[in-house]
Amino acid sequence: MNLREGQSLMIQAEPAHAPLVRAIAEDAYAHGASYVDVLLTDPWVHRAHVAGAPEQSVAHTPRWQIERLEDAIENAGATVRIAGAAHADIFEGLDPKRLADATMPDLRKRWIEAVSASELSWTIVAYPDPEWATEALGEPDVERLWEALEIALRLNEADPAAAWHERADELTARCEILNERGFDALRYRGPGTELEIGLIPGAKFLGGRERTKHGQDHMANIPTEEVFTSPDRNRAEGTVRSTKPLALNGGVVEGLEVTFAGGEITDVRAERGAEIVRAQLETDDNAKRLGEVALVDNSSQVEAAGLVFFNTLFDENAVSHIAYGAGFGWTIEDLPEDSPHRELLNQSKVHTDFMVGGHEVEIDGVAADGSVVPLLYGGEWQI
Amino acid sequence: MNLREGQSLMIQAEPAHAPLVRAIAEDAYAHGASYVDVLLTDPWVHRAHVAGAPEQSVAHTPRWQIERLEDAIENAGATVRIAGAAHADIFEGLDPKRLADATMPDLRKRWIEAVSASELSWTIVAYPDPEWATEALGEPDVERLWEALEIALRLNEADPAAAWHERADELTARCEILNERGFDALRYRGPGTELEIGLIPGAKFLGGRERTKHGQDHMANIPTEEVFTSPDRNRAEGTVRSTKPLALNGGVVEGLEVTFAGGEITDVRAERGAEIVRAQLETDDNAKRLGEVALVDNSSQVEAAGLVFFNTLFDENAVSHIAYGAGFGWTIEDLPEDSPHRELLNQSKVHTDFMVGGHEVEIDGVAADGSVVPLLYGGEWQI
Repeated sequence: MNLREGQSLMIQAEPAHAPLVRAIAEDAYAHGASYVDVLLTDPWVHRAHVAGAPEQSVAHTPRWQIERLEDAIENAGATVRIAGAAHADIFEGLDPKRLADATMPDLRKRWIEAVSASELSWTIVAYPDPEWATEALGEPDVERLWEALEIALRLNEADPAAAWHERADELTARCEILNERGFDALRYRGPGTELEIGLIPGAKFLGGRERTKHGQDHMANIPTEEVFTSPDRNRAEGTVRSTKPLALNGGVVEGLEVTFAGGEITDVRAERGAEIVRAQLETDDNAKRLGEVALVDNSSQVEAAGLVFFNTLFDENAVSHIAYGAGFGWTIEDLPEDSPHRELLNQSKVHTDFMVGGHEVEIDGVAADGSVVPLLYGGEWQI
Repeated sequence: MNLREGQSLMIQAEPAHAPLVRAIAEDAYAHGASYVDVLLTDPWVHRAHVAGAPEQSVAHTPRWQIERLEDAIENAGATVRIAGAAHADIFEGLDPKRLADATMPDLRKRWIEAVSASELSWTIVAYPDPEWATEALGEPDVERLWEALEIALRLNEADPAAAWHERADELTARCEILNERGFDALRYRGPGTELEIGLIPGAKFLGGRERTKHGQDHMANIPTEEVFTSPDRNRAEGTVRSTKPLALNGGVVEGLEVTFAGGEITDVRAERGAEIVRAQLETDDNAKRLGEVALVDNSSQVEAAGLVFFNTLFDENAVSHIAYGAGFGWTIEDLPEDSPHRELLNQSKVHTDFMVGGHEVEIDGVAADGSVVPLLYGGEWQI
C-alpha cells in the first residue's frame, strides 16, 4: 500500500495469519505509521454466526465496522487484507444463502464505494498456513505452498520489489495499447464459452498500480498480473465456462457455466457448488450483472507457479477472468460528470471474480465499427 | 452474564482463547443471542504498538472502539471478557510508561462509567493456555493449570452452576451483615501493613451478583469470592504490603508496598516491578486514590486451589484486596442524588486491584462512634 509517514494502517486478517500481521504491524511503525489497527476474524466464530444467528441478523453489519472504515477514509489511511484458506471444511454443510448473506453487505458496499472513489491506499496479500496448504495441495504441506508462492509472488527474483515495479510498468504499457484501441466489446471463444461483453465508451483499462485521490500510488493486489476494466452493465450475451475452481463464501465451485442475456446472468450451472453462486446472485438487483473484465497473459508468474491455489487473489491472476457485481468507479473517472455512459457502470454490494481464460480460450476485440481484432489467444497477446 | 433471548453479546479475547470464544459464540446463539460480536486482540501486535507507535498515538483509542461499546450500551447488551496470560515474556523490556498509556484509557473510562451506571450485563472469565500455564507454573502444563481451575471455578462440584448460585447467596448474606453495621472505616494490620481506609457513609458492600439498570442479574466475575465497596477517596492512611504477586500491564509486581496519606498514594516500593505501578499512577490525577476495598474469607475456592495464578481475576479472589483508581458507582446508588457523600467516590481511567490479606492479616471494622470490631482475622469472619 506504499505506506506514507504519518499514515494510519488498518489490517484485516485471521488468527492463523498472526505471524504476518505482527510483522506488518512492526514494519508499519518502523516506517512511521501513525497507528496500526488490527481486526482479526475467526472462521469458526463465523461458522457459529452463519449456523446460529437469527434470520434478521445474519446480514447485520455492526455500526462500528462502518465507523472504522469511515475513520480510515477521513484520515486517508492505508489498509491491508490478508487472504488465505477458503475454509471450505469449516463451513461445510452451512446454508449457501446464509453464507452469502453473512458477509456484512453494508460494509462491503461502503468499501466498494470507497475503493471506487480512490479514497484509500489498499492492498491484498496472502499468508500460507496448514489449512490453505491442505485446500490447495491435499495435505498441510506449508513448505510446498511456500515454494509455489515464491514463484507467484516473484520472491525468487533477486529484487522482488523491483520485479513488481517492473511488472507494474509492463501492465501499465499494456493498458495504453488497449486504451488507444478503444474497443467497443470483447468476444470470448473456447470450450463451453461463446460470450460477448460490451465495454463502456471511454472507460479505461487499468492495471499494475492504482492511485488514490490523494495522489498515493499503491498496488491493490500482490500478486497482480491483470489489466482490467469495468464493462457495460447492459451488454453481455452468451455462455462462459470457468476454467478454474472458484473458492467462494466458504465453498468451492467447480465447472461453473454461466449464461448471460441483456447483460444479466440468466442461468448458472456447475459440476459442484452452483448453489453458492446462485445464493450470492440474490444479494441485490445488480449482482447478476458484470462489474469487471480482466485479461491475463502467459507471462503471469501465478500461472508459472503451476498450482490451483483455491484462492481468488492468486487464481484470478493466473488467467483472464470476469466478475459479476460492482464495477470500479475509477475506470470511468475520466468521463465527464454528466456523461450518460457513467450509468453503464454496475453498482452492487458484491464483486466476485471467476476465471474464464486459459490456453484454450481466444479473446477478440471488437471495434466501434464492428471490425474484429485478435487480442489474446492461448494467453499470448496478439496486438 | 445471564444472557437473555434477543440480547446482543460482545466478546473480548485473544487468539489463544479461540476455543472458548467459539464455544461461547455457539452457545450464545443457541440461547437466542441477537448478534455475537467478537474482538480478538493479539499480544504481539500490542507489543509492536507499545514499542513502535509514535508518542502521540500510544494512548490513542480508535473512535470505533468507543462506538462499539456505545452500541452495546444502547442495546442493553451483554459482554464477556476472556482473561488468561499476562504476557510478561512478550512485553519484556518495554517502557512501563508506554505500557501503562497503551491501554486505550478513553475506552476504559467509558467502560468504567457504563459499568458504574449498571448499563451492561457483563462477566470476566478465563481460558487456560500454555502461556498462562508457564507464567503460573513455570512450565506449559495446561493440564495442571486446568486442575487448579477446576477447584477455583467449582467445576469439581456436582452442579457447578448451582454451586455458584449458592456462593452468590452466601456473599449477598455477608453483605447484609456488613451493611447493617455501617462501618466508618476498616483497619488492616499484618506484616508490613498498618492501614486505615475510610468508607463512604451509605455506600453498600456488594458481592456475588450485580443487577443492571434493566433488571438483569449477572455475575461480573467467575470466580467471585469477594464482598466489596468503594471507599472514601480522601481517607486512607498508612502502609500496606501486598501478599501476592500482581500481573499488571504485561509485567509482574512482587513485594509491593504502598503508603497512603490523605487518601493518596505517596510512595510505592516493590521487590520487583515498582515502576509498572508508578507509571500507571500517572495516568490521571485520581489514579493514586482508592476505588475499592474487598474482603475475601477462607471459604474461597481460589485460595483452596493453592496456586498463585498471576492473574488478577483469580488472585484477587483468593484473599482480601484493595484497588487504586475508579470507584464503582453502583455502591452508592442508594444515596440521594444531592448527597455530598457522592463526591467521595473516586473517578479515574484506571482500576487496579492488588492483594492485601491472607492468613497473617487482621482486619477490623471501625464504627462511627470510634468503637472497633474484629472483622476478618486470618481469613475467618469474626462477625
